[in-house]
Amino acid sequence: MRKVSVIGTGMIKFGKYPDVSLADLGWPAVKQAIADAGIEARDIDALFCGTGLGGPMPGQRIFGRLGIAGLPIINVENACSSGSSALSLGYTAIASGRYDVVMVMGVEKLTKFNGGTIPLEKEDWEVSNGLVMPALYAMRARRYMHDFGLTKEQLASVVVKSRRHAALNPDAQLRKETTAEEVLASRMIADPFTLFQCCPTGDGAAAIVLCASDLARKYSDRPVNVAASHVASGVFEGGFRDMTSPEITVRCANDTYEEAGIGPDDIDVAEVHDAFTSAELMYYEAFGFCKRGEAAQFLQSGATSLGGRIPVNPSGGLLSKGHPVAATGAAQVVEVVRQLQGRCGGRQVQNAKVGLTHATGGGISGFDHGVCAVHIFTV
Amino acid sequence: MRKVSVIGTGMIKFGKYPDVSLADLGWPAVKQAIADAGIEARDIDALFCGTGLGGPMPGQRIFGRLGIAGLPIINVENACSSGSSALSLGYTAIASGRYDVVMVMGVEKLTKFNGGTIPLEKEDWEVSNGLVMPALYAMRARRYMHDFGLTKEQLASVVVKSRRHAALNPDAQLRKETTAEEVLASRMIADPFTLFQCCPTGDGAAAIVLCASDLARKYSDRPVNVAASHVASGVFEGGFRDMTSPEITVRCANDTYEEAGIGPDDIDVAEVHDAFTSAELMYYEAFGFCKRGEAAQFLQSGATSLGGRIPVNPSGGLLSKGHPVAATGAAQVVEVVRQLQGRCGGRQVQNAKVGLTHATGGGISGFDHGVCAVHIFTV
Repeated sequence: MRKVSVIGTGMIKFGKYPDVSLADLGWPAVKQAIADAGIEARDIDALFCGTGLGGPMPGQRIFGRLGIAGLPIINVENACSSGSSALSLGYTAIASGRYDVVMVMGVEKLTKFNGGTIPLEKEDWEVSNGLVMPALYAMRARRYMHDFGLTKEQLASVVVKSRRHAALNPDAQLRKETTAEEVLASRMIADPFTLFQCCPTGDGAAAIVLCASDLARKYSDRPVNVAASHVASGVFEGGFRDMTSPEITVRCANDTYEEAGIGPDDIDVAEVHDAFTSAELMYYEAFGFCKRGEAAQFLQSGATSLGGRIPVNPSGGLLSKGHPVAATGAAQVVEVVRQLQGRCGGRQVQNAKVGLTHATGGGISGFDHGVCAVHIFTV
Repeated sequence: MRKVSVIGTGMIKFGKYPDVSLADLGWPAVKQAIADAGIEARDIDALFCGTGLGGPMPGQRIFGRLGIAGLPIINVENACSSGSSALSLGYTAIASGRYDVVMVMGVEKLTKFNGGTIPLEKEDWEVSNGLVMPALYAMRARRYMHDFGLTKEQLASVVVKSRRHAALNPDAQLRKETTAEEVLASRMIADPFTLFQCCPTGDGAAAIVLCASDLARKYSDRPVNVAASHVASGVFEGGFRDMTSPEITVRCANDTYEEAGIGPDDIDVAEVHDAFTSAELMYYEAFGFCKRGEAAQFLQSGATSLGGRIPVNPSGGLLSKGHPVAATGAAQVVEVVRQLQGRCGGRQVQNAKVGLTHATGGGISGFDHGVCAVHIFTV
């Protein structure tokens, strides 16, 4: 398989844009990524657009503005992993030898629901029985608290770190620093989660230009290698076994490490799917950044803060950068690629050479089995 | 790039199944395709599910029943080309060398809208200005009638052929033969289209097992080669130029012929996107089966009927087999593959060696630019 590199990235500041169309949300990210890659639009051979709730043919609506007839445009839906699944398709498309330059994006407009709940299928028995996302994550968090002695204060400290990072990221949705007291005083959503412990809703778009590695330096003087790209869906073999260990992420992490020939100790920076506070902690363990049950101590040691051993979510993550479903996976890649290029200003991870992104979505079992996408990048 | 073959196909009879869930629609097609391929579920390396309107994570809902943890499942939306775009992704996934066996499906449940219109985005200016699909196709048909002298009776004869073929296809939704008089007497939908000239709404699912050609005979004694797989989106360079020539299809046809090293004279059987009667005629010309303006005469000569030079839509096509959006592109492949395997009973195209499928969707310009997927198969 042909090697693949990232040569360009673009994103808009995540936030609420109720009066902006999906196409108008996406287009600035596309333009920025093209300019950053140093390509002309006509260099693009194929395009993949991830959206979870954007309606029919979002990619055609956005990429149509490039004004190029005949390009293959394919839209991808994989819940919260839509943007990162699109990236995986773009990676495979170049790896196959068929294309040289591919654009990938994730775009979402959650404000179109006017603050209401996201419409889901009647067939979704998890949701129809009350297992909406905050409840699902809360149930798992409670179990983790029971099993490992995690405290509410420790959960709140995930948000404190997140906001401290986001304050340094001009593209983040929530940039005001906060305290554990303030986090715990915000209104209760699903015990143990107060409002600040849940990622905000909002709109966003992020775009990535991929290029065959053998051609990358024709366009860019700072290409970033895609060392591994992996998508895995679930099905809990033997049933629902362990609420405190995210089975799909563990599986996908191991496969991705193996594919890249890289282990957790090699990772310099990671963007993980912290949709709720407890999730970030469980992912430290799932990725092997620390041992089972020690995530809170690992966080409190400063290891995952900027300046620590392995800064996690330097962008602010889902909790503060925001979580416009499909845009998230693509924006994680934008952050990690720019970290490896040394372009992140006040939130730069010093001497970052290896980065990881992780987006996961869907329920726990039954209805949709979940999905996870992990990518590793190197310079 | 590694060569790719089809080794298994499955589909359900298209029709209206209001009380059946999307997952229950899809699952029998999956099982049938696995059995037909002679594989075990555990042989599958990756899965792609096309759906236009199926809601979040249809592939996980369906393929989860395989009970295999960790498989990459990616959902694809490309309007009426969703199933065929999924096929193109499966093709690339094997061609890349990463996977050996891939399952692809298209699935759709239109009865979930209870006979109401399909919900579309507010941003869709074509629809909000009245250019719904019947109106859009009717406008183009009217222009073709004006330019080339096409008559209403000739349009009706497309349906007569379609139903005659569908009567021989147990998986078709509308299997009762009809006459031109009956077609013209059905109620008016969008002049010149009467009801019978519009594809019906309904539910459906179709699945395909792809395999690296070098391994295909390990499983199947009748693999079918994928000679070319092409997806193209639109944008009318220079604006909306010619209503009677489907620009994206012409472009995609030419690219696919070139990729396969095959021309229109080589095609023995074709399934084209006859969403409305006039469409089938225009596609005869777009694919070079006959000259511009001569499609009606070509049809009336019997060339595209079973027993003719190049039978088109032996399955009954969208007009009679039905058109459950994303399932269509996959079902076209099921039909053509089975034709090339000589398994089509009363509707078998004799000595068919080369077949073509064509699914196209989306509007004409502006909102979503349209998309088209063309595949060529050989034995």
